[in-house]
Amino acid sequence: MPDRDNTPQMRPIPIGIAAGGVRHETDSMGGIDVPADRYWGAQTQRSLIHFSIGDDRMPKPVYHAYGYVKKAAAQVNASAGRLPEWKRAAIVAAADEVIGGDLDDHFPLYVWQTGSGTQSNMNVNEVISNRAIQLLGGELGSKTPVHPNDDVNMGQSSNDTFPTAMHIAAVLEMNRVLIPRVAALKDALDAKAQSWMDVVKTGRTHLQDATPLTVGQEWSGYVVQLEDALAGLEASKGGLYRLAAGGTAVGTGLNAPKGFSADIAAEIAQLTGLPFVTAPNKFAAQGSLDAIVAAMGAVRLLAVALMKIANDMRWLASGPRCGLGELILPANEPGSSIMPGKVNPTQCEAMVMVCIQVIAEDTAVAIAGSQGNFELNAMRPILINNMLHSMRILGDACEKFRTFSVEGTELNRAKIDAMVSQSLMLVTALSPVIGYDKASKIAHMANDEGTTLREAAIKSGFIDAAKFDEIVNPANMVGAGVGGA
Amino acid sequence: MPDRDNTPQMRPIPIGIAAGGVRHETDSMGGIDVPADRYWGAQTQRSLIHFSIGDDRMPKPVYHAYGYVKKAAAQVNASAGRLPEWKRAAIVAAADEVIGGDLDDHFPLYVWQTGSGTQSNMNVNEVISNRAIQLLGGELGSKTPVHPNDDVNMGQSSNDTFPTAMHIAAVLEMNRVLIPRVAALKDALDAKAQSWMDVVKTGRTHLQDATPLTVGQEWSGYVVQLEDALAGLEASKGGLYRLAAGGTAVGTGLNAPKGFSADIAAEIAQLTGLPFVTAPNKFAAQGSLDAIVAAMGAVRLLAVALMKIANDMRWLASGPRCGLGELILPANEPGSSIMPGKVNPTQCEAMVMVCIQVIAEDTAVAIAGSQGNFELNAMRPILINNMLHSMRILGDACEKFRTFSVEGTELNRAKIDAMVSQSLMLVTALSPVIGYDKASKIAHMANDEGTTLREAAIKSGFIDAAKFDEIVNPANMVGAGVGGA
Amino acid sequence: MPDRDNTPQMRPIPIGIAAGGVRHETDSMGGIDVPADRYWGAQTQRSLIHFSIGDDRMPKPVYHAYGYVKKAAAQVNASAGRLPEWKRAAIVAAADEVIGGDLDDHFPLYVWQTGSGTQSNMNVNEVISNRAIQLLGGELGSKTPVHPNDDVNMGQSSNDTFPTAMHIAAVLEMNRVLIPRVAALKDALDAKAQSWMDVVKTGRTHLQDATPLTVGQEWSGYVVQLEDALAGLEASKGGLYRLAAGGTAVGTGLNAPKGFSADIAAEIAQLTGLPFVTAPNKFAAQGSLDAIVAAMGAVRLLAVALMKIANDMRWLASGPRCGLGELILPANEPGSSIMPGKVNPTQCEAMVMVCIQVIAEDTAVAIAGSQGNFELNAMRPILINNMLHSMRILGDACEKFRTFSVEGTELNRAKIDAMVSQSLMLVTALSPVIGYDKASKIAHMANDEGTTLREAAIKSGFIDAAKFDEIVNPANMVGAGVGGA
Amino acid sequence: MPDRDNTPQMRPIPIGIAAGGVRHETDSMGGIDVPADRYWGAQTQRSLIHFSIGDDRMPKPVYHAYGYVKKAAAQVNASAGRLPEWKRAAIVAAADEVIGGDLDDHFPLYVWQTGSGTQSNMNVNEVISNRAIQLLGGELGSKTPVHPNDDVNMGQSSNDTFPTAMHIAAVLEMNRVLIPRVAALKDALDAKAQSWMDVVKTGRTHLQDATPLTVGQEWSGYVVQLEDALAGLEASKGGLYRLAAGGTAVGTGLNAPKGFSADIAAEIAQLTGLPFVTAPNKFAAQGSLDAIVAAMGAVRLLAVALMKIANDMRWLASGPRCGLGELILPANEPGSSIMPGKVNPTQCEAMVMVCIQVIAEDTAVAIAGSQGNFELNAMRPILINNMLHSMRILGDACEKFRTFSVEGTELNRAKIDAMVSQSLMLVTALSPVIGYDKASKIAHMANDEGTTLREAAIKSGFIDAAKFDEIVNPANMVGAGVGGA
Repeated sequence: MPDRDNTPQMRPIPIGIAAGGVRHETDSMGGIDVPADRYWGAQTQRSLIHFSIGDDRMPKPVYHAYGYVKKAAAQVNASAGRLPEWKRAAIVAAADEVIGGDLDDHFPLYVWQTGSGTQSNMNVNEVISNRAIQLLGGELGSKTPVHPNDDVNMGQSSNDTFPTAMHIAAVLEMNRVLIPRVAALKDALDAKAQSWMDVVKTGRTHLQDATPLTVGQEWSGYVVQLEDALAGLEASKGGLYRLAAGGTAVGTGLNAPKGFSADIAAEIAQLTGLPFVTAPNKFAAQGSLDAIVAAMGAVRLLAVALMKIANDMRWLASGPRCGLGELILPANEPGSSIMPGKVNPTQCEAMVMVCIQVIAEDTAVAIAGSQGNFELNAMRPILINNMLHSMRILGDACEKFRTFSVEGTELNRAKIDAMVSQSLMLVTALSPVIGYDKASKIAHMANDEGTTLREAAIKSGFIDAAKFDEIVNPANMVGAGVGGA
Repeated sequence: MPDRDNTPQMRPIPIGIAAGGVRHETDSMGGIDVPADRYWGAQTQRSLIHFSIGDDRMPKPVYHAYGYVKKAAAQVNASAGRLPEWKRAAIVAAADEVIGGDLDDHFPLYVWQTGSGTQSNMNVNEVISNRAIQLLGGELGSKTPVHPNDDVNMGQSSNDTFPTAMHIAAVLEMNRVLIPRVAALKDALDAKAQSWMDVVKTGRTHLQDATPLTVGQEWSGYVVQLEDALAGLEASKGGLYRLAAGGTAVGTGLNAPKGFSADIAAEIAQLTGLPFVTAPNKFAAQGSLDAIVAAMGAVRLLAVALMKIANDMRWLASGPRCGLGELILPANEPGSSIMPGKVNPTQCEAMVMVCIQVIAEDTAVAIAGSQGNFELNAMRPILINNMLHSMRILGDACEKFRTFSVEGTELNRAKIDAMVSQSLMLVTALSPVIGYDKASKIAHMANDEGTTLREAAIKSGFIDAAKFDEIVNPANMVGAGVGGA
Repeated sequence: MPDRDNTPQMRPIPIGIAAGGVRHETDSMGGIDVPADRYWGAQTQRSLIHFSIGDDRMPKPVYHAYGYVKKAAAQVNASAGRLPEWKRAAIVAAADEVIGGDLDDHFPLYVWQTGSGTQSNMNVNEVISNRAIQLLGGELGSKTPVHPNDDVNMGQSSNDTFPTAMHIAAVLEMNRVLIPRVAALKDALDAKAQSWMDVVKTGRTHLQDATPLTVGQEWSGYVVQLEDALAGLEASKGGLYRLAAGGTAVGTGLNAPKGFSADIAAEIAQLTGLPFVTAPNKFAAQGSLDAIVAAMGAVRLLAVALMKIANDMRWLASGPRCGLGELILPANEPGSSIMPGKVNPTQCEAMVMVCIQVIAEDTAVAIAGSQGNFELNAMRPILINNMLHSMRILGDACEKFRTFSVEGTELNRAKIDAMVSQSLMLVTALSPVIGYDKASKIAHMANDEGTTLREAAIKSGFIDAAKFDEIVNPANMVGAGVGGA
Repeated sequence: MPDRDNTPQMRPIPIGIAAGGVRHETDSMGGIDVPADRYWGAQTQRSLIHFSIGDDRMPKPVYHAYGYVKKAAAQVNASAGRLPEWKRAAIVAAADEVIGGDLDDHFPLYVWQTGSGTQSNMNVNEVISNRAIQLLGGELGSKTPVHPNDDVNMGQSSNDTFPTAMHIAAVLEMNRVLIPRVAALKDALDAKAQSWMDVVKTGRTHLQDATPLTVGQEWSGYVVQLEDALAGLEASKGGLYRLAAGGTAVGTGLNAPKGFSADIAAEIAQLTGLPFVTAPNKFAAQGSLDAIVAAMGAVRLLAVALMKIANDMRWLASGPRCGLGELILPANEPGSSIMPGKVNPTQCEAMVMVCIQVIAEDTAVAIAGSQGNFELNAMRPILINNMLHSMRILGDACEKFRTFSVEGTELNRAKIDAMVSQSLMLVTALSPVIGYDKASKIAHMANDEGTTLREAAIKSGFIDAAKFDEIVNPANMVGAGVGGA
């Protein structure tokens, strides 16, 4: 392993351990067998045994993010002369494999584990240690020459690095999965809004017929809801960019050298190309998870907006003959196992369910976020799992909803036109001319007698036909454009 | 395929399709390729494409339950002469494989799909159809001689069978996963309570020292909380036993023969050995999911109780030197990546997180349960997924918590004894003798002067030493037994 | 005050204190001025100062329930010779006034106070003490001859009596406010269901046209949902009937005499005419609030059901010309400040909002219910406030909804008939005859070509006109009756 | 009433109607009696009858905010020549009284009313109309010369003005009630943090002893949590500053003149001194309530932070003899009705309950926020009521918590010192010197043998006494300052 001057040399060994059965690994509790073809060590194995609760595994993005933390720590430690170059190089090589997802199979732990995330941190430490040992020609499980705690975890604690990894993972997944898919959906809605900007339809308030607007105007509201939600997501990154790394066990930075906090944040910023900085107060950064709670609130707002949009679409497409019937959604699949020919707004339903799930997972995040004690909020896994899960299903749902519902949606022009022409609420345009009370009488008369508004208006004597036709023109009642008056 | 008298014969073909590439399957929308080694058909394949949202798959217990539904339907249809015996036998054979989990790999659909569960129903119909066709020597995808809709789905709709499968799955999983594990935990807590029934400790209310009780009394409270929660789970089965099957599309039973509802419920009851009955009103049974909402409320109550128990345990074990320190929890793993020798209440933390998750998933169930419209609540997948998930993680967490925390918990007698002896709240025993106001003065005096209660009492002149010693004896202050006074 | 043999005599003094300014009252913290015309004492006054948070006051039903507790305790204490008859009589007289609401103005405390409810217990103790002193001719604030702690609170603690009062209040309000109003609404819905049992309408699943049912069948589903919810409320009383009284400070019953628990529960049962019993385990009864959490879950289920019903009604009444338009809701008020003649489903909206509020308040109850520690759940005020508030607004909303919406609802028969006749989903009846796939083709053809189902069916060649007319008859498609098939 | 040139003149008539019994008022539904001494009209009266649900009244800040809307509308309408000057002046005079709260008694409506808030808008229109009529010497109820709809509501709809009033009320209450009280609490915490910056104490993670930090550092974390929450509140105003006014019925601005949106927003900005602007898209602004949902999320984050702080304080003050005992909270009141001398962390408990309530009310806001349909979210009253209520109780709780808990909190230095000196986690400082594994052995040895860390370290042979004393010095282990390393 060592070369002439005793420096261990890294070798280009591919990922994988050619061994069967088990390998003995140790930690401060003693020894334990692990699968011989896995890089993990004793603490990971203990966690696997003690916490096999459900099928929920710590999401892989947490480990990828942790790869950045370990790489950055090694760089900073080496720069300061605390880690020899050959050790740095081996740790970085292994960390890069973690970042790239190449070691995903070696991170088996469950979500429901220690509340600090220590076991997942140790999983990373053990895997990087053993992989680095392998690259350096050492013996797996020997902790030599790369020790999981003393080297890979140097200057770190789970208490500061796990929330750091949470923040990195949250931002990366927001950027990778959520924002682009929401943006694409927004663009698709906007394209529809633009193309239907002049199609006059009946408005509805309280589910009841109201004054007209255009289909494009209605859809422009959806676009703006998503724009606002996207702005909220962007704003929520502000808190996520602040990293706890360097606070070590309780926020004081014990065992981390001076300047470590700022240095590791700068290194992570450089590695990710994102403006991460060190959190100005580590006691808040480790004792609370408020930045995650706030960011999840932004995700939740998106769910609230999407639920309205999906509900509008399925109601506007209700029918085909006994509903509102303004929209024709794409028929992607047979709708019923018993009713032949039925087509259902299934993408809308999936979206609504996803939105409800996100609202509920946000509740989990808020409750867990409130349960910190002293120098640690020991509810970290539930927060990051829910946040990543919510972003994932919302992002995916946006993509499916756009592809299989929004983009193929068509208007039923005949239905739209027929309804707008018969709506009694066109009477509103008369109000400034003849007053609210008389206009009201006309509307009630038309409704009671089943006549058109025009017939009732003329019969009322409050206005003559010419004046009525001049004033009550739906196309003139929809205002200047997208923004409304 | 047909034998001499033209009756198709079933052959003992093992599960599996020896084919590569794709197979062409069709439905009312046209044709589509499916993996050749899978039994599913066109509608499943469409759903896979249209709804690949996250990694959440419809839980397998739903399919196992659906196996009972399909088997029971085939039996009832055959008994009434609507299905030939050979067809019944083939459907039942395939359904039994579904029930047994042998076809699990053929149910790939996502949770976030059509809100009625139609796609999962069709997945079952298609798999049973193709598997039965295979058993009968027919051509996969031909829908002959066993048609997924006309035969497997005979007399059924997703609208009535999916909630039926939900109810069956909920009861079976409650019986299999949740109740026994909670009961085992309760027994373990009870064993501890019994063994510690005479150990006097300081009580605490508002986190502040209060009058004494025994450790066993304290733990008996946990036992009773779980007993009550178990009773709630049992009671919640009442609603779950009522099945919608037979209501078909909208509850009227269209296309199902007379008596089908009662017959299929009776058949399911016989197959499962559980008292399932037909729901007295199918419009409520299909338009709402209230029985699931109610049952989830019972699961939630269990989470509320377990959260208190897990929190108590971790607080009572806080320390080892700067906390309450009454309990010594088993040290299952190293607690910290930076602090050597640290042992943390990780099982309690996992349990608390699981409980928060369940409380939040219950919120999802309640919201979704409220969103039914007309003849269908189209939020079924989110309800059953959350309910099954909650029961699973709670059940598993109970098992781990019992095995790795409760059973190995020991008392720190020295700490317990020291604390009870110095508690000022022993003064309460004086209250009936010298009155509340004087007793209060003694307690405040001892606190302010840092003396023992006895010293302060004697100094106060309100009582003499002999009388004090007679009255203030912690062992006499803990009442008659487990139930409290 | 004392009569010849030195026994104080009660005098018929009406409620009220003829005094202005302030009165000096004392407790173990010292003295404080209280308004001279109020019965409360020092501890109430301190709480008023320290906890003036918002406008939320502890609900009056809690005090009325506490009146029963104090009365029962006095009876039991007197029966056992621990309280002289004249003292018992005075306490009972004052407690009866509390029960009757005559002293409501003397219970000013806020919800957000000590988590045990001690301050409200002391408020009751102080008011009864002073009122009893007044009746006995003593000096207000002197605590003589009836002491708030030593006499009124004899054998009690807030820790056992406050949850006792919570349970009593919850049951009484459930019986007084919630159940009868829900039952009346159920009856009103049932009357409508019966009267419309033969009106065939189009069913809707996924908001899309489905096979027909009758209006009465649809409404029968609402009735059954409410029946089930009412059954849940009744069942939830089981836990509420178990009272903590007698556990005193930590559940051991310290300072309460032997048998006190059973005796006071029996006395409360007799006073209220309800089957209250002593809780079998006081540590669970005081350390948790699980019975309230469970009962609130039953209230929540009611909200879930009512939300579906209210939503159905407003959607079915949508229009009048551009919606579903099957129902005509009473026009109770002008609907719009700008649109003349508009009538909105305002009762439905109020009901939906109330239901959402209840679902959220249930979440508060669950979270708070999980936050107990050791011998006390110190979240009692938030639980009882939310539970009583939820029952109140749900009960009131049911009454308004019934009176101003359900009872006056009419059918738009013309619209209902027109829609059922044009629904394509009548095709389902053909499925058992010509098969699902052919039936599906007919439905799609009719939809694409805008023809009637009959035209498409005949054109398809799959069936002739006579057969079609025989099979496709909506009135024959609605099954046997209320329960569905 | 008119002067020489027929212009009505305003007279200095004080608020109040000297009349008994009832007055007849009318609206488009007909006539109805109202109390003669109230300014409200027919629609308010109808709402009072139809919606008497619970005791929840529309919060007064909504009406005060509506006063600004009506005043601004009158100014804009007058400037544009649509309203004569004398009418403007009378409306503005009445609106100023509304703003000032002088007409609060005339706004009696319930929260649970029409979902658009129309009834509260009409309440304002009616009160301003009648008050203006009174000022102008007209006949109450005559709608002459100031009509509630045609004049007071000119250019407006409830659909645009109610959310406008919601936004104004939310910002004003946030500025008046919430932010200053949170800021004052933050300052009080900061003062404590500064004064205790050098007091070394044991850290705690997972509730278990951890490495030391200072009390000031711990409290600095609380300060930063509140700073971050305050920043979130400030940021949430961005969305609230965007007003829907001018969108009228469905967002198109029908019946509002060109430029009305921008003009009324500018006028409101000037009247309030706050940067209100017109919402760029009225369809989003009226169809959703996303800005309120987002702002409520910021309020919720504050609750999450405060819950952690309040919990920390009560746990750190637990005892006095059997708890952590580091803090001594002010004793504001007797703690127990049965245990003399007991002092409880009641302010912390009130705060925790308030925080839970806010988290739950946020859930109500999210659910209701998701339930918009088409051109209106008809859940407005529940959103604004919960938001204003949450801000109120949180603000008040902060004030009480600061005054009666934080400011009077003292340290128990003896306890703090004793605990830090005996904590085994000081061993962490040895880790960089002797390695994690050896340090771990020392900690376990000390724990198992009940010795000091120093004794165990020396006995272990891993380090000598001199080196131990050099390294293991709590005062050197707390890092550089407030921010942590």
